[in-house]
Amino acid sequence: MRALAERARTAATRLALADRPAKDRALRVAADLLEARSDDVLAANAADLERAVADGATDAQLDRLRLGPARIEAMASGLRQVAALADPVGEVVDGWRTPHGLDISRVRVPLGVVAVIYENRPNVTSDAAGLCVKAGNAALLRGSAGALRSNQAIVAVLREALAKADLPEDAVVLVEDTSHEAAVAVMRCTETVDCLIPRGGPSLIAAIREHATVPVIIDGDGNCHVYVDAAADLEVAAAIVRNAKTQRPSVCNAAESLVVHAAVAEAFLPRICAELAAAGVELVGDAPTRQIVPEVGVATEDDFAREFLALKLSIAVVDDLAAAIAHVNRYGTGHTEAIVTTDLAAARRFTREVDAAAVIVNASTRFTDGEQFGLGAEIGISTQKLHARGPLGLRELTSVKYVVWGDGQVRT
Amino acid sequence: MRALAERARTAATRLALADRPAKDRALRVAADLLEARSDDVLAANAADLERAVADGATDAQLDRLRLGPARIEAMASGLRQVAALADPVGEVVDGWRTPHGLDISRVRVPLGVVAVIYENRPNVTSDAAGLCVKAGNAALLRGSAGALRSNQAIVAVLREALAKADLPEDAVVLVEDTSHEAAVAVMRCTETVDCLIPRGGPSLIAAIREHATVPVIIDGDGNCHVYVDAAADLEVAAAIVRNAKTQRPSVCNAAESLVVHAAVAEAFLPRICAELAAAGVELVGDAPTRQIVPEVGVATEDDFAREFLALKLSIAVVDDLAAAIAHVNRYGTGHTEAIVTTDLAAARRFTREVDAAAVIVNASTRFTDGEQFGLGAEIGISTQKLHARGPLGLRELTSVKYVVWGDGQVRT
Repeated sequence: MRALAERARTAATRLALADRPAKDRALRVAADLLEARSDDVLAANAADLERAVADGATDAQLDRLRLGPARIEAMASGLRQVAALADPVGEVVDGWRTPHGLDISRVRVPLGVVAVIYENRPNVTSDAAGLCVKAGNAALLRGSAGALRSNQAIVAVLREALAKADLPEDAVVLVEDTSHEAAVAVMRCTETVDCLIPRGGPSLIAAIREHATVPVIIDGDGNCHVYVDAAADLEVAAAIVRNAKTQRPSVCNAAESLVVHAAVAEAFLPRICAELAAAGVELVGDAPTRQIVPEVGVATEDDFAREFLALKLSIAVVDDLAAAIAHVNRYGTGHTEAIVTTDLAAARRFTREVDAAAVIVNASTRFTDGEQFGLGAEIGISTQKLHARGPLGLRELTSVKYVVWGDGQVRT
Repeated sequence: MRALAERARTAATRLALADRPAKDRALRVAADLLEARSDDVLAANAADLERAVADGATDAQLDRLRLGPARIEAMASGLRQVAALADPVGEVVDGWRTPHGLDISRVRVPLGVVAVIYENRPNVTSDAAGLCVKAGNAALLRGSAGALRSNQAIVAVLREALAKADLPEDAVVLVEDTSHEAAVAVMRCTETVDCLIPRGGPSLIAAIREHATVPVIIDGDGNCHVYVDAAADLEVAAAIVRNAKTQRPSVCNAAESLVVHAAVAEAFLPRICAELAAAGVELVGDAPTRQIVPEVGVATEDDFAREFLALKLSIAVVDDLAAAIAHVNRYGTGHTEAIVTTDLAAARRFTREVDAAAVIVNASTRFTDGEQFGLGAEIGISTQKLHARGPLGLRELTSVKYVVWGDGQVRT
């Protein structure tokens, strides 16, 4: 592992100085090659799928693992989109002149070696590598055992493209040892890894917390709420709740919980519960909810704390805005929280007091996403406060350097 | 520990919403109280000093531990200076409108609970707490056993000032258990600590890497270089080297190593070595250096890698700029690196290719410091790339929150 990480480190040093045309060329060539070599990639993926079927994988697992012409096309298109984004490296974030006449600027620089530990989906290989390379970083990728052949085929294409653009192949390296020990070794490459981004479930996050000695950006759960205020437009609220819950229930920015102000609960709950039930959503709620809509099941404490990632929603009725904020801050995971209201004071208070990466007024939680927010793409969504919060785009894959120009100043 | 950290967490939630006048009042009252209660603080410090003498502390250790009227005054003045700084909370970092008509802004928010583990110097207690409170964070402070009574006295003053400003006293809490186990417990308060800043030597950093499960900002060593280029003005170079090495040798931004281009080595080394020797600096160098100045001792590999924090300097002669950059990147710790040159191309290449928190052209390394850089104050200097790099001021003690305003948008 150390030797592999060292190769990435050496490549990162070169890639940090690469100009934008070279990096963009590598990404565009990689996109072209992915299309040209799609038969190879699909054959490798077929072998992974065959093994997964033999191992008794679920349909959902097979779906995440499966590539097809459309997914290959999406990977290529993603690489081309990243190539079209501005280069974050060299951006002057801010600057000023000091009283001693020093001219100081803070300049964006690559992080260095970015490690990504991720689960089944092989398209992450290309997405993560593309963003890392564009931001001048080497990507040290550790995918799952089940996607190894697919990842090898995709990484081979990416490395060939780097070489064709006269950039170091080792700017994208795959950890082919898919043992737990190898993942732990990645987490402990203190000398070489500048940042580790884990993309996976709670057990991966727990392993990271336990073992990691390298800096980490946690891409955690999204137990997202929609709060329907006393002053909500109930048509708007119904559209937002439906969208947040059902438009794509398996993702982290889908809503998992509905919080309704008591003043509108009788007017709102029967209709939204009927609409959601019709859309196949399982509903569980607290006692006040069930008094209004008896068909709703009993919500346990665990239901309120859980990210269902499925067509299931917990519902709570609260007496006032303060109780809504307290509920959201208690059960939320710091991802995305939305309020529906026409009351400016309520909206301002909710945005100030709710502690989350994104707080949204009168729109669906589903917008928290690098592409929707306008970052172009994302390598994950941070639920921690250090370094970056919310969607991780190119900017979040950089650090800064103070550059100071003087003419002989010394300190007295 | 968990109960103490929970108290800090509760206080942090309240402090995050405090307005600037309340926070500034707390800091100014604390400054006044530190002066009014200086006898109490000095008595507590005298007890710590007595114990330290009995334990056989060195003069340097006693000096770091010792408070006196001037140091109390400096602590009070530091708190007043932080009160005078702008409030970072609520600053809109940037913002934009998306194609769906969502108005997005990124707003600065406090980190939450900031833990600081630090060694002997009791003034860190007041400095760190002041910065944390101003940035809306609760400070969970864990000082050393040797400074416990001093820290207790200072924290008592800070807590009284918070109460007088109607802010929660638990915004500053001291971990009075000074065992190693308690420090490890702080490092593992995953549910309550948003950021841990260790201020101490390599053994503390190693313990953090091994045990910490909370996000960390490493304030690491400063093995800082001054590189004297072929095109340096040698008068400027001599002034900068003298200043960087001797103005305050015990601090992290002092120079530990001099790198000289071969083209100017014969002109520069004899004079600078004589000047430094006259200032009491022990000199060690590589073979080319010792050919020119035979009085210089032999530099070992360890000498080049070491932060002396004392009047000692390692010297290397290099054949060209590329070798200078390679030497600096090999032995440097990513803190501060300086070049002295009149050659614009050399300066630009050095600033681009040297990987450090601060790269300085024609000025002393001693300027890398929150106050000198214009941040007002600092809680440490980050040598890592994640979250913050270089001096950690108020801004670096914050996170951001995406605030999104819509009018009913849903995702399609």
